[in-house]
Amino acid sequence: MQLLRDIDVPTLLLDKKKCLANMERMAAKAARNKLAFRPHTKTHQSRVVGQWFRGFGVNAITVSSLKMAHYFAEDGWLDITVAFPLNLRELNRVRELAAKIALNVVVENPEAVEALSREIRHPLNVYLKADTGYHRTGLSPDQSGPIEHIMDQVDAAKWLTFKGFIAHAGHSYRARGVVEIQAFHEESLAEMNRLRERYLDRYPNLVTSIGDTPTCSTMEDFPGITEIRPGNFVFYDLTQYHIGSCKLEDIAVAVACPVVAKHPRRNEIVVYGGGIHFSKDRLQLPDGRIIYGQVVQAEANRWSIPEQPIYVKSLSQEHGIIKATPDLLEKTAIGDLLLVLPVHSCMTADLMKGYLLLDGEQITMMS
Amino acid sequence: MQLLRDIDVPTLLLDKKKCLANMERMAAKAARNKLAFRPHTKTHQSRVVGQWFRGFGVNAITVSSLKMAHYFAEDGWLDITVAFPLNLRELNRVRELAAKIALNVVVENPEAVEALSREIRHPLNVYLKADTGYHRTGLSPDQSGPIEHIMDQVDAAKWLTFKGFIAHAGHSYRARGVVEIQAFHEESLAEMNRLRERYLDRYPNLVTSIGDTPTCSTMEDFPGITEIRPGNFVFYDLTQYHIGSCKLEDIAVAVACPVVAKHPRRNEIVVYGGGIHFSKDRLQLPDGRIIYGQVVQAEANRWSIPEQPIYVKSLSQEHGIIKATPDLLEKTAIGDLLLVLPVHSCMTADLMKGYLLLDGEQITMMS
Repeated sequence: MQLLRDIDVPTLLLDKKKCLANMERMAAKAARNKLAFRPHTKTHQSRVVGQWFRGFGVNAITVSSLKMAHYFAEDGWLDITVAFPLNLRELNRVRELAAKIALNVVVENPEAVEALSREIRHPLNVYLKADTGYHRTGLSPDQSGPIEHIMDQVDAAKWLTFKGFIAHAGHSYRARGVVEIQAFHEESLAEMNRLRERYLDRYPNLVTSIGDTPTCSTMEDFPGITEIRPGNFVFYDLTQYHIGSCKLEDIAVAVACPVVAKHPRRNEIVVYGGGIHFSKDRLQLPDGRIIYGQVVQAEANRWSIPEQPIYVKSLSQEHGIIKATPDLLEKTAIGDLLLVLPVHSCMTADLMKGYLLLDGEQITMMS
Repeated sequence: MQLLRDIDVPTLLLDKKKCLANMERMAAKAARNKLAFRPHTKTHQSRVVGQWFRGFGVNAITVSSLKMAHYFAEDGWLDITVAFPLNLRELNRVRELAAKIALNVVVENPEAVEALSREIRHPLNVYLKADTGYHRTGLSPDQSGPIEHIMDQVDAAKWLTFKGFIAHAGHSYRARGVVEIQAFHEESLAEMNRLRERYLDRYPNLVTSIGDTPTCSTMEDFPGITEIRPGNFVFYDLTQYHIGSCKLEDIAVAVACPVVAKHPRRNEIVVYGGGIHFSKDRLQLPDGRIIYGQVVQAEANRWSIPEQPIYVKSLSQEHGIIKATPDLLEKTAIGDLLLVLPVHSCMTADLMKGYLLLDGEQITMMS
């Protein structure tokens, strides 16, 4: 790659072609299933990448913070869901955004709705967070009392509209392979459909929204679901590859890391590229090894996947230690760059704060 | 705490009193042992915190990148060691800094010295990275051939001066308790003293520098060592507490996190505060549990440590899940703040990009 010549510190490369292919595939799946497609922006956090979605007919997005909502609203996004339980300490930001765009917030307790009823003076859509088995946040569909209490509160509030249920089957991340993903998917759908059946009469336009990348990437049918909100699929990463959500070739980001040391005695290469670049997210291989990245091979205008996998075995704050083959050690010189696929692209992007496209274009992110 | 009222998003609090006490204790230990004290700035990455060290007679620092060296050089630090193997792709930054300050770089291969000999036209001090048992980077003291080859290269280069050996006994992080730390310390000292004995005639002012927080915090004797470069001790964290480097009361940073949900069914509290605030660094307790933080109690002008430990059991990108006691659940309201000690303060500070002192003063960091 020509552009590698000028890289001096760890740099996040983005293969736009792969990224667009990931977007297109997911947009087509949403269209086939007549699902609203509201991609999550927390993975890329970039207005430029957000605009690429426009090319696939996307006009609504998901964000994970009010700061992110503000960042994208300023770039012309007029329909934004903040997929995080409402933070009562940021009602001023909710107020400000609700005055400008179609803002959708997520609640799971009466305190949140009470505060919104009191403080908001513009139309605001409210989603109830449903816990479909992940047990991180949300109300379980069996909690009809608390669910209906919140619905009643929303219906009684002048500016609030109850839109539906939003779920994140984050436990699908524990899956390995499509069969296991399918089991999580079916569990999640069953829970969402319980809610749908119970409340469709009350809300004929009820939205049922799910969002995890593993199920959205691998499943073909979404009965009873009206919206998907995957985020990670835009880049994918090693975690998604090992779950079975994507091929290694679909991963659209890699960190270019300068080689600073070689230790042939233990077949290791030390790169400049550590926890402050990749994050410390880790992945356990089927054989029990913990890895923090995987090396790919730079070609003229892209990277290729070597047949024998070569992994980052540990990370310190600035160092990455690569367990190399004798062949890689032999052909790698001090001062070269190695390209490394990240374990968790969302966290890596958040740390790197920008992208370099393979044609040399720099792309900024939310700072 | 009065200042908590105005906090709306996850915020890194810094107890300056604890921080100064940590600095003072380490500076006193260095003075008692006649050790040069060159604290590492990678933990705090802040010019303001750096200036606090001046009050303890510190006039030399350690950094982990050339960017950090530049940031502190611009604030008047004139003697800086970049404790990371020289990155050949940043020779321009080395050149620029060497022209302005007493710059010390670390090498471990002939390629690096060759490049420095060719490119640098100002005085530059060179340290050789010694591997004293951590096996991350550096040359093992038994590699006399490669070590002396580098010494010869440095001695032959007009602008380079060989200063000594720099080691980081990072394997002391695996220790639990002072007895284990002592074993790592003795191993590290033995290796450094092998080098010292072998090369003191050749370099009568030979520097032998060690740097890890566990040994510098707990050991009293440093025979044969001339310099210490600990960094983490400035704040400490849960990792250091569990290693045995500090008391919980010494930890000088905590993240204030808004409470967004409560789940009494499973005794959990969800806070706004996740992997993009804390990092995903984790800690295994003696009973096998993995934790990501520990809750402390806000008092009028400080925080206190509850008798029964309450831990963050998992982190997503923005969510933290706290395994609460029924008592904490009872007294915590949606919209409250909980204060959480981080597992790894260096990574947390790097992500948070700033501090709020308990008197309300905002402190910036390298951006």
